[in-house]
Amino acid sequence: MPVATRGMMRGVPHDRLRPMGAEMMLSNAFHLFIRPGVESVQKLNGVHGMMAWDGPILTDSGGFQVFSMSDICKLHEGGVKVENPIHGGWIDWTPKMAFEVQAGLEPDVAMVLDHCPSEPSNRDDVAPAVERTMRWAKEQRELHEARGGAGSGQALFGIVQGGIFEDLRTECAIGLREMEFDGYAIGGVSVGEAHAEMMTAVESSAAHLPENKVRYLMGVGTPIDIVESVARGVDLFDCVFPTRTGRFGTALTHAGRLHLLNARFREDTDPIEPGCNCSSCLSMIPRGAIRAGFQSKEINSSMLVAVHNLHFILDLMKRIRVAIAEGSFEELRAEIAQVYRPRLT
Amino acid sequence: MPVATRGMMRGVPHDRLRPMGAEMMLSNAFHLFIRPGVESVQKLNGVHGMMAWDGPILTDSGGFQVFSMSDICKLHEGGVKVENPIHGGWIDWTPKMAFEVQAGLEPDVAMVLDHCPSEPSNRDDVAPAVERTMRWAKEQRELHEARGGAGSGQALFGIVQGGIFEDLRTECAIGLREMEFDGYAIGGVSVGEAHAEMMTAVESSAAHLPENKVRYLMGVGTPIDIVESVARGVDLFDCVFPTRTGRFGTALTHAGRLHLLNARFREDTDPIEPGCNCSSCLSMIPRGAIRAGFQSKEINSSMLVAVHNLHFILDLMKRIRVAIAEGSFEELRAEIAQVYRPRLT
Repeated sequence: MPVATRGMMRGVPHDRLRPMGAEMMLSNAFHLFIRPGVESVQKLNGVHGMMAWDGPILTDSGGFQVFSMSDICKLHEGGVKVENPIHGGWIDWTPKMAFEVQAGLEPDVAMVLDHCPSEPSNRDDVAPAVERTMRWAKEQRELHEARGGAGSGQALFGIVQGGIFEDLRTECAIGLREMEFDGYAIGGVSVGEAHAEMMTAVESSAAHLPENKVRYLMGVGTPIDIVESVARGVDLFDCVFPTRTGRFGTALTHAGRLHLLNARFREDTDPIEPGCNCSSCLSMIPRGAIRAGFQSKEINSSMLVAVHNLHFILDLMKRIRVAIAEGSFEELRAEIAQVYRPRLT
Repeated sequence: MPVATRGMMRGVPHDRLRPMGAEMMLSNAFHLFIRPGVESVQKLNGVHGMMAWDGPILTDSGGFQVFSMSDICKLHEGGVKVENPIHGGWIDWTPKMAFEVQAGLEPDVAMVLDHCPSEPSNRDDVAPAVERTMRWAKEQRELHEARGGAGSGQALFGIVQGGIFEDLRTECAIGLREMEFDGYAIGGVSVGEAHAEMMTAVESSAAHLPENKVRYLMGVGTPIDIVESVARGVDLFDCVFPTRTGRFGTALTHAGRLHLLNARFREDTDPIEPGCNCSSCLSMIPRGAIRAGFQSKEINSSMLVAVHNLHFILDLMKRIRVAIAEGSFEELRAEIAQVYRPRLT
């Protein structure tokens, strides 16, 4: 899922999404609640109208965003109080509120509010976060049931927490599975841990989630993280990585990352990746010009590489689907591992 | 001409240009000389290769830009010394240098270096600037002749100065005409003067320039400035106005300017201009979402309106050409005057 946190892509023109194979989009309920507000989104015909997107849309509950603003948030057992970053004052962001805001925004998939602990390797933080996440999940599952479940037109996904601890991940996954969500997410990863730790978290979560429901890894990721997570059963991802890394000048290619600000690209006449059929590469704007643009802070350089990178990631997902269908996934996995080394520490 | 000052559009994706009717592009020789440098541009196959544009390209000599950095430039009779804004040190930007840099950049049209005085209504500034501009023009005309004139593959345009003074404009236009340039530009306008003063400057210049050569008004402009200048014989324009004004949230429409940050657009489900066939309007992203995006400083909002505005201006040029051919130009002129009021002071 391409990410439109505030209801809008960043650096990738909207009408480029379909041609590059995007089907489902992600937005963020907390951010939309803050601005333009649920009522305004409703007047704009929900997130589908606001984003002018007729494919499926998933909204995150904003748990991750809220907890990442730890200096202006206060956790309590019933939710989290967070300072309104735009209008001032305090918002009590509770499971009930996250649920109701998402019901109002009208995405196809809503996420439960979970507690994403800031230090995934500190068991004293993580264990109570798992307990809280499950308690909140249960509360939201009941609200969902009362609204008609998936029959309401909106699915609700639970989120597995547990940091880097296999037993906590497994406990949380089994607990959520028993609550019978419409789909399941794995949260609390890609917060600074090494690749191997992330894979432990993914594996000990995914292994206990039903195979016939969507398994969605939140906020991931890089090519190696994606391929290795698919190997462990993950179906769905969202991540700002391709567009963000592109906006800052790093291109993802079949030969690995290219740091386009590097002096060696100064007079390079190639497009970002020769042979690529994204709109940036087809435009034939040379790397040398894109580099000069980055040096002058031209937004078009950011845009060109963001588009290319999102195309690369969506194309990788396509290649994964084909490889699985054809039985050649292990070859693709080896190829990606060769080119995109995992984060070691 | 859409403007790519540093060799790259700002906010308008490159491959949107042809479909919206762009044929000729503008870039800036001084900026390209600073970065990435003439040698690098040559390695990128000239401005055409760098900008990936196979239509005509005109480079401005950078006179206007240099003189607008008046705190770091020192005028002398042979040129202007200007501090290198990127690499430090001083550059002596002379007519010969401006000519040679442009010969190296390989645009289809080069502009002479002129002296654009900072106060167009101060005759004590303007009269010597006209004298200097004509002297420099003559020098560059000779360099052009020595290189084979337009037969070299590069045309050279002279630039009329003279501030708001009819007699100085006329004197300069006649002087340049006698030098026989490949085309003629009117410079030193749109520097803060009222619409009527601009029109006096345009009329007293254009009336003395040959009708069978291009007459190009530099750095203009708004819909009313364009239509009124065409009425006075101008053929060609360049201006950052549509993209810049769009990036800051003002849309140009057939009903006039829309300030999209205005609260009345908060819940507006219309695209920027209903019925418009630019890519932004066809994407159906509602004004309410574009407004929220501007509030959150999303570059995609800037991009959407920049694209729409450039489309509007290029479409206006198309309508002007059709109206002239059909004999209905005065109706179009009246329509634009009704909707886009001139700048009065």
